Amino acid sequence: MQDAHDSFRTIWQKGDDDGVVQIIDQRELPHRYAVLDLVRWQDGVDAIRDMAVRGAPLIGATAAYSLYLAARHSDAPRGEVERAAEALAAARPTAVNLRWAIDRMLAAGRAASDDQLAAALRREAAAICDEDIEISLGIGRHGLALLEAIAATKDGPVNVLTHCNAGALATINWGTATAPVYLAHKAGIDVHVWVDETRPRNQGSQLTAWELAERGVKHTLIVDNAGGHLMQHGLVDIVITGTDRTTRSGDVANKIGTYLKALAAHDNGVPFYVALPSTTIDWRARDGVAEIPIEERDPGEVSHVPGMLDDEVVVVRTTPTATPIGNYAFDVTPARLVTGLITERGVCEASEAGLAALYPDEARL
Amino acid sequence: MQDAHDSFRTIWQKGDDDGVVQIIDQRELPHRYAVLDLVRWQDGVDAIRDMAVRGAPLIGATAAYSLYLAARHSDAPRGEVERAAEALAAARPTAVNLRWAIDRMLAAGRAASDDQLAAALRREAAAICDEDIEISLGIGRHGLALLEAIAATKDGPVNVLTHCNAGALATINWGTATAPVYLAHKAGIDVHVWVDETRPRNQGSQLTAWELAERGVKHTLIVDNAGGHLMQHGLVDIVITGTDRTTRSGDVANKIGTYLKALAAHDNGVPFYVALPSTTIDWRARDGVAEIPIEERDPGEVSHVPGMLDDEVVVVRTTPTATPIGNYAFDVTPARLVTGLITERGVCEASEAGLAALYPDEARL
Repeated sequence: MQDAHDSFRTIWQKGDDDGVVQIIDQRELPHRYAVLDLVRWQDGVDAIRDMAVRGAPLIGATAAYSLYLAARHSDAPRGEVERAAEALAAARPTAVNLRWAIDRMLAAGRAASDDQLAAALRREAAAICDEDIEISLGIGRHGLALLEAIAATKDGPVNVLTHCNAGALATINWGTATAPVYLAHKAGIDVHVWVDETRPRNQGSQLTAWELAERGVKHTLIVDNAGGHLMQHGLVDIVITGTDRTTRSGDVANKIGTYLKALAAHDNGVPFYVALPSTTIDWRARDGVAEIPIEERDPGEVSHVPGMLDDEVVVVRTTPTATPIGNYAFDVTPARLVTGLITERGVCEASEAGLAALYPDEARL
Repeated sequence: MQDAHDSFRTIWQKGDDDGVVQIIDQRELPHRYAVLDLVRWQDGVDAIRDMAVRGAPLIGATAAYSLYLAARHSDAPRGEVERAAEALAAARPTAVNLRWAIDRMLAAGRAASDDQLAAALRREAAAICDEDIEISLGIGRHGLALLEAIAATKDGPVNVLTHCNAGALATINWGTATAPVYLAHKAGIDVHVWVDETRPRNQGSQLTAWELAERGVKHTLIVDNAGGHLMQHGLVDIVITGTDRTTRSGDVANKIGTYLKALAAHDNGVPFYVALPSTTIDWRARDGVAEIPIEERDPGEVSHVPGMLDDEVVVVRTTPTATPIGNYAFDVTPARLVTGLITERGVCEASEAGLAALYPDEARL
């Protein structure tokens, strides 16, 4: 059955105009649904760097389409694609499948003749998006089994806690952490989501709450400080988050604060799952805390908060002007705190053996 | 040496007018320093309930002065004091020393003759404030020894992380968690404070950052999600928080999110201390998670954020209008995660034996 769940997209080619790609400008959510045109590849760099798009899979897809745009609008397309690839790779250093998408696009470009370069890159970008939808649905089906198992053991809703937005808005559709929730909702399971606000950028209150409301999924917004208290009182059945990068040993780099929720889940015997497409596994990294560089972002993200005032979005300063600010974008949750990884191929233990059993070829690298 | 540290007060009698008590309206900080007059005892109830004052000791002092005002401005003062006591006790259910201050004031009132009632209550409220300053200084001196010990083992600043505001603004002066920091700063120790923003009311960015800046103490504001990451990377030497209520076994109820920081400290071997006046110990409670009621507050505290826009303080809505919100004000940190309690009588283990050794009379109850 085709419904609002199925038709949603976060990036698409504009109607019949193959020179323009469109995205949802996620900086305007939840207050306004705005669409942004990408014409030059630099528009894609800006969209990734300024977080008009975010979420590892959507960042990869945006980079892919940006490389297509580089070829489409240039008289010397091969050189332009090289330049674009370099700039795109530098736009968000932590997202590993940004690099993956770029490498795949460059390989597709090398395999194409000069006059077929743009068309080949367009097909490859579209294929990356189609495959991402299949990956989300795979994650969703495997995670759905976990929610069904919980639903079978209790009355009342299955309470899921999630941090940040690993939702449809972070992918092409369905999301990663949210895919099991959406499939459960479609299947008629009573599911309720505790949505962490996710300071400093409020992806939970701005994005996750918005997309859950759009699809009619029950949810309650909480501050990032509240999850531990809820778990102490039996109000969380399962935590599911996304990840920006997972090491081969199952350490998980995700939005700052994920580690704190994992500690609380562990302390209270609440299962803590991480949903991920295998493209976000970094097979070269083992020790997440030691090896994954953590992006430090603009202090203005902490000091300034966007919000509605009299039907207009304004940005207010919440901090004293004299106060220095540290803004760390991610943290690393050690594998020992992760109950399991939900991938498109199945659920596995967060360990080298667990991942190698599902991905033997990649693990051999 | 008298300095800015010594002369600061959060509540005081207005000059020669013994009918008016004044407080700093902490809702206006950090953007504006505003003073609020309390004339009727109901002004005190409002100030406590609407959080113009907050922090367990200052709440107690405000209740004390409000009972004085009830007697001072009434023709039937004993009945009025009774009515005021009931309303004040209900204004913030979690703060145990609100009840303590009220009981002490009522006892002082009973001991006074009718024509001396108001004067006796005024003296008692002033005594509560003077004693609170001595308590803060006691906590400060015992905590200072911990900071001195860390300073002796390392180069560079002693990095303290704190959550919420257990600062001078939460007491009469000096604070509880901040008292060791201020005394260290006065003593010339290089100290730096990581200040948690403390959603939803932003007491960290609004109050702690403000008072540290006022006194010239080095500090960096971070979101509540960041502490775990800092501890994983060795950037925190000690955590010191306050508490609203501590059980006789050392469980600590404090601002929502404290538990998550305690888990991170425990996971990384960072000492986690709680600074408290013994008046906030609830000798009748043992199991904090099971026994301490957690206040749920207005969802508007989460959805609406005050901030500066063009030199004016405005309040913006950050959430989708359709999103339900849960707003839990406190959580409980189990004693097993607390390295020690810093009290006015000394530092002890967070346990029944530890507290009983310092407070044998109270523990016997």
